[in-house]
Amino acid sequence: MPVLVVGSIGLDTVKTPLAEHADLLGGSASYAAVSASFFSGVNLVGIVGEDFPQPHVDFFGSRNIDLCGLQIAPGKTFRWSGEYHTDLNTRTTRSIELNVFEHFTPTLPASYNNTQYVLLANIAPSLQLHVLDQMTQPRFIIADTMDLWINIAKDDLIALLKRVDMLILNDGEARQFTGENSLIKAGKLIRALGPKYVAIKKGEHGCLLFGENAFFTCGAYPLEDIHDPTGAGDTFAGGLAGYLASLNHDEVTFEDLRKAVVYGSVLASYNVEAFSLERMRTLTPQDIVRRYEIIKAISHFEVLP
Amino acid sequence: MPVLVVGSIGLDTVKTPLAEHADLLGGSASYAAVSASFFSGVNLVGIVGEDFPQPHVDFFGSRNIDLCGLQIAPGKTFRWSGEYHTDLNTRTTRSIELNVFEHFTPTLPASYNNTQYVLLANIAPSLQLHVLDQMTQPRFIIADTMDLWINIAKDDLIALLKRVDMLILNDGEARQFTGENSLIKAGKLIRALGPKYVAIKKGEHGCLLFGENAFFTCGAYPLEDIHDPTGAGDTFAGGLAGYLASLNHDEVTFEDLRKAVVYGSVLASYNVEAFSLERMRTLTPQDIVRRYEIIKAISHFEVLP
Repeated sequence: MPVLVVGSIGLDTVKTPLAEHADLLGGSASYAAVSASFFSGVNLVGIVGEDFPQPHVDFFGSRNIDLCGLQIAPGKTFRWSGEYHTDLNTRTTRSIELNVFEHFTPTLPASYNNTQYVLLANIAPSLQLHVLDQMTQPRFIIADTMDLWINIAKDDLIALLKRVDMLILNDGEARQFTGENSLIKAGKLIRALGPKYVAIKKGEHGCLLFGENAFFTCGAYPLEDIHDPTGAGDTFAGGLAGYLASLNHDEVTFEDLRKAVVYGSVLASYNVEAFSLERMRTLTPQDIVRRYEIIKAISHFEVLP
Repeated sequence: MPVLVVGSIGLDTVKTPLAEHADLLGGSASYAAVSASFFSGVNLVGIVGEDFPQPHVDFFGSRNIDLCGLQIAPGKTFRWSGEYHTDLNTRTTRSIELNVFEHFTPTLPASYNNTQYVLLANIAPSLQLHVLDQMTQPRFIIADTMDLWINIAKDDLIALLKRVDMLILNDGEARQFTGENSLIKAGKLIRALGPKYVAIKKGEHGCLLFGENAFFTCGAYPLEDIHDPTGAGDTFAGGLAGYLASLNHDEVTFEDLRKAVVYGSVLASYNVEAFSLERMRTLTPQDIVRRYEIIKAISHFEVLP
């Protein structure tokens, strides 16, 4: 089954302590869609300007990503520029040019309306809600978000939570959203606002998954070097959503989600090994299986005798 | 088999955002010895003053802790006072009175010299080395340490590392010691200095274990409330060491250590539920098994089909 992915598509300029690259393929939907495409077909909804390089469009097309929902609008593509600090854990946004993204309304092609799996990648909650308004009862809806929306659109986000099955956010955002320092309490508080499942991403420390009377803690793949953390969260969400869509179970179970979280972690661990989506271009299904099995090997231990 | 535990024994005054208690049983050896005693006998080496309350001595005795190595010296017991800040993740030391601890030389009773399992709980590396000088080829030596010794006794610590099988330290200390931000790199760098195994404790994020071409990541038990983090690391080390001693394997394997790390995490998760060692007084073996099985249940996932 395909997964609908809606979010931003942009051109990023990224500076790390070791290198700087300009006008890279970026945006939450780009990372999420390509990551999901390793497991399932993708219906992509996003907007780019007339300056968006054709090779990026061709790359999406080569990845089993349907492009009916990709709007090409007069004007320039959304641009973001950011700089990572020494430890790569913190970054500063240097500039944002919304360009065509400023007036983006995610309108779904008729062929997308009944997609069963939906990933609302990181964009304004009002746009995420607008997508849901156009859909006919999807089976499983996942929303990603970020600190910006918690700051400036918290009411919209709370409205969104009542309509999604799962929210994904990082540890800092979970604390910010709930005002609760304990991530365990934060995850439960967010679940109480609507979503049946909450995933809290912790970067190098892995991920926590909360369900009804269910909990899963997933360690991160032990990477020694990270070259560009941009898009790690989007890649995680895309891998998770794509894997669930590939299962096509009548109902998503907590067991499905445990595995989906591990797949999301695997995809993110590869993506941060290179700038932009470069690592995704050479990634193989065998690579994915290998790290999935490594995460199992490094996190399992024997039962009691 | 018994485990030899050497470290500090003190009376702590601890302030958290919710409460403050004075003259509580504390010190690295107190936490570690009591935690280890849930798995094996303990040979305790430490020093207290004449003011040390007899009920604390009786508590040690009630826990299968041999007290031949407990020195009672003229003067007052070591005292520490600290205050935890809002999130309980950071603390400020308000005062330290070394008292009898200032001239402590850990001299082993003859009956302790050939103890096979040794936990050098957190004290100056020079004292940890002095203990090893008195021993006849123990089977497995674990050392714990802290930021203070990395700052003021790094050469002693490096000398110690050549003589121990395992070092335990927390994430901040691993970064401080190696100057390396990646914990994966830090763990490998510390192993290269001597110890066959390194455990990096990450508090709420669990623990990483490094061996030769072997790695284990253990999630933390999902606690909602922490009442007093004091001694969590010592309790972790004690549970780990006590479990290994209880196995009494000819050679400690990485599989043994995975389970030992989980047991250490379980003991620490209980200890932080109350001030001082209060939770240890009512803890049962059934409690320990229950959380061990919960950590397994929340961190395991299915293999690929």
